[in-house]
Amino acid sequence: MNPLVAMLNSRSGRLYDSGIKEMIEMVYQTGALSFTAGEPSMDLIETGRIKQAFWESFENPGDLLSYYHDPCGLVPLREWIVDWMKTDGLLPTETDSNSVHLTAGSQEGLNLIAESLIDEGDLVVTENPSYPEAFLAFVKEGARLQSVYLDSQGPLPEEIENIAKRDKIKIFYTIPCFQNPSGSVTSQSRREEILALAKRYNFILLEDDPYRHLWFNSPPPPSYLSFAENDDRVIYLGSFSKIIAPGIRCGWIVAPGWINRTLLRSRVASHLNLPAPIQQGVLNYVRNSTFFDHLAHLREAYEKRRNALVTSLQRHIPSDFFSFNVPEGGFFLWGRAPFMHDSGGFARYAVNTERVGVLSGEIFSFDPGSATKGTLRLSFAKITEKEAEEGCTRLARAFSKFAS
Amino acid sequence: MNPLVAMLNSRSGRLYDSGIKEMIEMVYQTGALSFTAGEPSMDLIETGRIKQAFWESFENPGDLLSYYHDPCGLVPLREWIVDWMKTDGLLPTETDSNSVHLTAGSQEGLNLIAESLIDEGDLVVTENPSYPEAFLAFVKEGARLQSVYLDSQGPLPEEIENIAKRDKIKIFYTIPCFQNPSGSVTSQSRREEILALAKRYNFILLEDDPYRHLWFNSPPPPSYLSFAENDDRVIYLGSFSKIIAPGIRCGWIVAPGWINRTLLRSRVASHLNLPAPIQQGVLNYVRNSTFFDHLAHLREAYEKRRNALVTSLQRHIPSDFFSFNVPEGGFFLWGRAPFMHDSGGFARYAVNTERVGVLSGEIFSFDPGSATKGTLRLSFAKITEKEAEEGCTRLARAFSKFAS
Repeated sequence: MNPLVAMLNSRSGRLYDSGIKEMIEMVYQTGALSFTAGEPSMDLIETGRIKQAFWESFENPGDLLSYYHDPCGLVPLREWIVDWMKTDGLLPTETDSNSVHLTAGSQEGLNLIAESLIDEGDLVVTENPSYPEAFLAFVKEGARLQSVYLDSQGPLPEEIENIAKRDKIKIFYTIPCFQNPSGSVTSQSRREEILALAKRYNFILLEDDPYRHLWFNSPPPPSYLSFAENDDRVIYLGSFSKIIAPGIRCGWIVAPGWINRTLLRSRVASHLNLPAPIQQGVLNYVRNSTFFDHLAHLREAYEKRRNALVTSLQRHIPSDFFSFNVPEGGFFLWGRAPFMHDSGGFARYAVNTERVGVLSGEIFSFDPGSATKGTLRLSFAKITEKEAEEGCTRLARAFSKFAS
Repeated sequence: MNPLVAMLNSRSGRLYDSGIKEMIEMVYQTGALSFTAGEPSMDLIETGRIKQAFWESFENPGDLLSYYHDPCGLVPLREWIVDWMKTDGLLPTETDSNSVHLTAGSQEGLNLIAESLIDEGDLVVTENPSYPEAFLAFVKEGARLQSVYLDSQGPLPEEIENIAKRDKIKIFYTIPCFQNPSGSVTSQSRREEILALAKRYNFILLEDDPYRHLWFNSPPPPSYLSFAENDDRVIYLGSFSKIIAPGIRCGWIVAPGWINRTLLRSRVASHLNLPAPIQQGVLNYVRNSTFFDHLAHLREAYEKRRNALVTSLQRHIPSDFFSFNVPEGGFFLWGRAPFMHDSGGFARYAVNTERVGVLSGEIFSFDPGSATKGTLRLSFAKITEKEAEEGCTRLARAFSKFAS
């Protein structure tokens, strides 16, 4: 080993590879039919309008190409976000664009928050299962992680309180709408209970909300942020990745005043600022009223894909092999194969023998146990009706063979 | 004060505001004629070609708009960088694109390196003066900073060695070509001496090289990276900010193998990846052969501006008021007003009374003393001949009044 490896710091030792990435590479290499990707379908990305919006941002770029912008991001886009969120009832009326920091996507937002709040040893509580790249951002900063189970109403308040009674929670991290990976939606009353716990036990509520706009029958409950009112312990993460395109890397944080200066200084120290032409391109894209038609179209299209996957699963796979909840929005269907002791082993088996890609639910837990045992996440975001049929046929074969 | 402020971590407490930013805002508010900006002149940015290059990257975006790219950045751009650097003799022949990580600009590269190497209390040695936003990235991670003076050949090896003898240096941070702010170029023999010290005392040499291509009479000496050969303690930072446009936020790290995995994992934890359409746009821009004509044009244009500033200074300001070195490339002229005890006070005075913006050299030192006492940085990057004349007239008045 190169002796210079000793130069790496202790943070480096906390980093590890993403489990999702490993499986996605496997899918790619085997050319499998894939239910793995947690991203929008390319055919639902409005390439033409994006091209046009970015063209306009370069047409008269003014100082977009210079260094000296507000490190929090382009003010008109932040104002647009504030107006939009208020229209949707997601923001308290007194919030203005000073509270909005644009990010290079939600992951960068998570990282900025983690870097601003977490001291080594601080406790972050997450849902189990939850988004593993969020764990990465917390663990990088030396957080200890604990988790709570979810039921049909969302994460369990009594579990949060049990932890809070014996330990100091710094952050509770939640994806309240169409959660990744479980598809779960936290109910209104559950949100109120959890916010009350956050106040009682004095922890930060980090609300990661990228799937909110992708609802099928009815919109999810209002954001924590909107009803926290003047209790400023909610930090909200929004993203354009799922509703415009992930490759543009643009999201935002709505942050309470007490953390604003830290976020600004962290931004300068880590990036100076973010690419303003991207922000202008996003603004050009969203302020065209067709953006709202696009959102409606996405909801319809993903609902159809959800339906197709559910139908195919029901047709080909007996429910004692694989039982699942029908998701009410987002990208993900989460289910459990009771016979399965090692869903990671199954996922590798399925991709190698039947060329169908699914993600083991165990990837979504740092503390695998009954929450994820025998579970799988199937993304329907990129799956046509025909692919759902073919994929479920393959999956059924993989189940039978693996079980025998 | 909001009690939630107590939630901020210890790193937050190490952050502080950028001194450059304060003065630039002052210049902006007063509408002053400004020698402050350390960025390319907008009229030397090829807006049309940039627009075209980005248009092409959106024309057939394929999976550019998706999530799943190499977190180190678009491979063809990394390969282009390798070829280019080899042509210029800046890279050892055995280096390939696996060693190149694209960044969201050099600041993000600095941050990534700092986050991968620095443990709290580690010693980083910089030049005095040097780039203050680099200090920010180091201090954020808890580095102790010490500095060494520069002479006409570059940073003083004996000062580096004095520090190394009594303390453990982790990183020596240097801007060897047309340094910000001093304009200094480290000579070939000085580079060899310093690299030998890095080997003897086992520290990392962090070579920040954004101004290299903006030479006037003759190219600067080869990079440290190129002659370090198989001693892999040099980490190189390159940037397109000064030669394409800073607003696109694109630079790169050339990193030795022992740090590669850490950089990749840090990238995933902090960003997932960077915007691929930007990287493709940059590739489209640079692989057009007119890029090299553009570089030649920049060299000529900035040399003319350097000449104009030097002529105007000589015409209007007696050298006993302000003596300076004539820079051989880059953006910056560095000089000293021997009578001046407080160049920060002078800079504020000049912008407020004569509406001419200059930066106090003290901003460029975390350890102000004889290295920066009475010094000023004048950027000629955005200054026309006429503006140089007018600016120096104002500066001369400010000097006379301030001295009296």
